[in-house]
Formats: sequence, C-alpha cells, structure tokens
Amino acid sequence: MSCRLTVVGLGPGRLDWCTPEVSAILEDATDLVGYAPYLARVPQTCAARRHASDNRVEAERAEHALNLAADGGDVVVVSSGDPGVFAMASAVLERLDQDPSRWCDVQISVCPGITAAQALASRVGAPLGHDFCVISLSDVLKPWSIIERRLDAAASADFVIALYNPRSRQRPHQFTDAIGIVSRHREPATPVIVGRHVGRDEESVTITDLGRLDHATIDMSTIVIIGSSTTRVLDRPAGCRVYTPRTYADPRPAAG
Amino acid sequence: MSCRLTVVGLGPGRLDWCTPEVSAILEDATDLVGYAPYLARVPQTCAARRHASDNRVEAERAEHALNLAADGGDVVVVSSGDPGVFAMASAVLERLDQDPSRWCDVQISVCPGITAAQALASRVGAPLGHDFCVISLSDVLKPWSIIERRLDAAASADFVIALYNPRSRQRPHQFTDAIGIVSRHREPATPVIVGRHVGRDEESVTITDLGRLDHATIDMSTIVIIGSSTTRVLDRPAGCRVYTPRTYADPRPAAG
Repeated sequence: MSCRLTVVGLGPGRLDWCTPEVSAILEDATDLVGYAPYLARVPQTCAARRHASDNRVEAERAEHALNLAADGGDVVVVSSGDPGVFAMASAVLERLDQDPSRWCDVQISVCPGITAAQALASRVGAPLGHDFCVISLSDVLKPWSIIERRLDAAASADFVIALYNPRSRQRPHQFTDAIGIVSRHREPATPVIVGRHVGRDEESVTITDLGRLDHATIDMSTIVIIGSSTTRVLDRPAGCRVYTPRTYADPRPAAG
Repeated sequence: MSCRLTVVGLGPGRLDWCTPEVSAILEDATDLVGYAPYLARVPQTCAARRHASDNRVEAERAEHALNLAADGGDVVVVSSGDPGVFAMASAVLERLDQDPSRWCDVQISVCPGITAAQALASRVGAPLGHDFCVISLSDVLKPWSIIERRLDAAASADFVIALYNPRSRQRPHQFTDAIGIVSRHREPATPVIVGRHVGRDEESVTITDLGRLDHATIDMSTIVIIGSSTTRVLDRPAGCRVYTPRTYADPRPAAG
C-alpha cells in the first residue's frame, strides 16, 4: 500500500525540459491523473493506468487522485509547466483542505518543473534577470479588483511582470485594461515579449513594446513578459536578445 | 567554427533536477565556464575544458566566455538554478551590451532551469500557487531604496514574496528592515518558509511564520518565501503542507 500522491510538472512543451526526477516518478506510478493533452505528453513506456479529464475540472480531478491514492495507489497528477505555479499542486491541497479528516493517510509530494515564463524568457535572453512578478489575469477564481491592484503595485515599483492567462475570449477588454494600468508607469518603448506554445513545434515568440503590442494576438495560450524601466533589447546580427540588467544604477523615476 | 555561447542552469543541488536539454548541451561543449562549485557539479563524463572562476566576478567570467566563443568554441556558461533568474544570463548580455561591436558573431542562447524558489516551494507544497514576486535583497548592484519600494508594493498588493540573497554578513540589519516593511501589511501568523541548500544532502526546510521567524538563521545560502494573506498551512499527520489557494474569495483587507 503506497497511499502516495505526487504532483509533477512536465515543463512546457518539449520533452527535454521534463526533469529526470519527474520521468522516474512517472515510470513508477500506478495511476496517472491529468488534463488529457498533458497525459498525452507522457511517453507510452509508462505502464500506469491513465485517468484523463477535461480542462477546468481541477477540484474533481484532485478528488479523484486523492481517492486513488487513499486506495493504496502510487498516483501521479500530471501538470504542464511547474505544478506549483497556477496549477494542480494548489488544486490538490485546496481540495484536501476542504475535508481535512479525509485522505489523512495520503502522502503528498510535489516535483518542480520549468514554468512557461522561464521558458519564454530563455528564448529571448534574460528578461527575468532582475526582480519580477508573476500574475494570472484570470478572474475566474479571484476578483478583478485584486488583479488591478497587483498590476498597479508591480508596475509602480518597476518589477518585470510575467502575465499568465492574459486574455480570455469572454473578457478580452481585461487585457487592454491591464496594459492600461501598466502603461501609467511605463514608457511606450518598454520591451514586451509574447510567447505562444513555447517549446512546441508551433512555438512563436515576438519581441515588441508596450506601445505597439497588438492585443488581438494575445489569448489564453500566450504568455506575456513586460520589461521594467531598465529592460534592454540588443538588436544584433546574430539575433535579437532582451535582458534586464542586474545593475540598477540610474533608475528613471516612475510616472504616475 | 561554432562561435556559440549557451548559458545553462543545472537547477538547485540535485542532479535529477537538471533538464535533459542541459545535460545534452554539456556533453557537446568544448568549454565550460562557471563558478567553481557549479562546475564541480557537472559530471566528469563531460570532456570539455573547464574554466573555473571565483564568486562575484561575473563580468570577467562573461567576458572570458564570450572570448572563447568568438575564437570558435562551443562554450557553455554553467549556472546553478535558472540562469535567467539573478544569474549568468543577464551578466553575459550586460557585458555584451557594454561593447556591442565586439563578439558580434557569437550566437547566444539560454536554457532554462529550476530556480531555487520553485524547488523550495515544491518541498512544502504550493506556496507559489498564486500571484507572486521574486526579489533579491542584495544591494550590491541596486540601491536599497529600490528594494524597499518593491517590498512595500509587493506586500501591499498581497503577493506571495520569494526573497533571494536575503541576508548578508555585512548588512544583516537589512533583512530585519525588509521583514519590517512586509509586516506593515501582513499578520504575524503569515506563513514563512525558509530553505537552506535545497536539493543538496545538507538541505533544511523550516515552516514558520512572520512573527516567529528567527533572523539569525537567515544568510546568503537561504531562500525565504513569505505567504500572502491567503496562504495556508495544513498540519497533517502525513506531513505539514503549505499552499496558496487559486481562489481568492474573501481577501482580508491589507493593513497600512
């Protein structure tokens, strides 16, 4: 009887971003639980039973995994990216917390993975090379007012800002509102990096700036990194690179 | 003639947190450049020449690597953690930026790695499960006033906060000042996670809170994660877990 639940992250897209720790854990599992497209990325050499679920049923998926583990399984919940960043590790612990006396024998572990913002950053250089914030723009689970307050605070204190779930079809104007808040504190020339499906065959990465950012190109499969006042674009013959210096010598005063 | 410089991150500590992408790149390198303890973590099967340097000579190390690459090498700069987060990727691009016409044939790439905050978070659950900030408390390269402003902004907007380089021997009072700023906006019971040497044999991880945090246990080899107002500690027989819920239903108003 294992009674073990491990939440792992495959990293974004490509297989060689998945850590050896996670690969070994997948090999030893009795059950794999996850959103169907993520389970499909687990190599077929893994003999575990697969329990695929739809998107947006995180609580039900977590409960299913906890039940399988309580029955003695060695259960692995499979996330993309880092399971600890806007992903299944919180969903599992949230479900457990609602019912603390249930599943009390289940050992819960989390294995880290490369998250999408790191992957996107690496594609262009080192825009996250200095103090940064990671914010989800989804207001499905939190009020939009909290998101606005965080965007304003992060922009006013000159953090680099990585945005997850930036623009939903239901509320496309929220991304425009978010960029409006950031723009109160940043110049139009501030570098912005937009990544779509980073690490996959259809990957696209665009380096633009706050003033020229085309909002229509942003959706839930993109990640957006907005530079700080010190983030620089190096336009070189050998390829354009973006970085945020470690040195913060002569900061421009933030407007607003 | 390769003329290639790749900045890679080994992840923190343990070898099975190093991605297969990075392992393959290390195998193919002609030269490895890095801080001596990080180079020592690269398996001896890698036949590349090794150029070890001391700590705090990032600019010189970057220049050396750029020169080796310009001479036709396939040079790998080895970082711990993620090379894009307070590490060598920015240092290389910063050096390049000071002298844009030099090294113009050198192709520069970055490969992401697990960063220390993710590793520490995974050890206790999912404290970074919701919006978070990553801040270095080192004022060697930036003014302390900028750090204070960022801490205040991050705490006032209820971000989870991960602190790198939290407490130097030269300026131990700065960590106390930083905690003082955060405490203006957070309850003493706010969960705090302290990790030392995460992923190594001597790893230690402590779950405490803002009011009881022992500042004397903090130094440059620790990472500190301070929860938001919603971060929860689950004290279970099967092990204590900490997480920040995805749901932000009923935020406590921030003080101050």
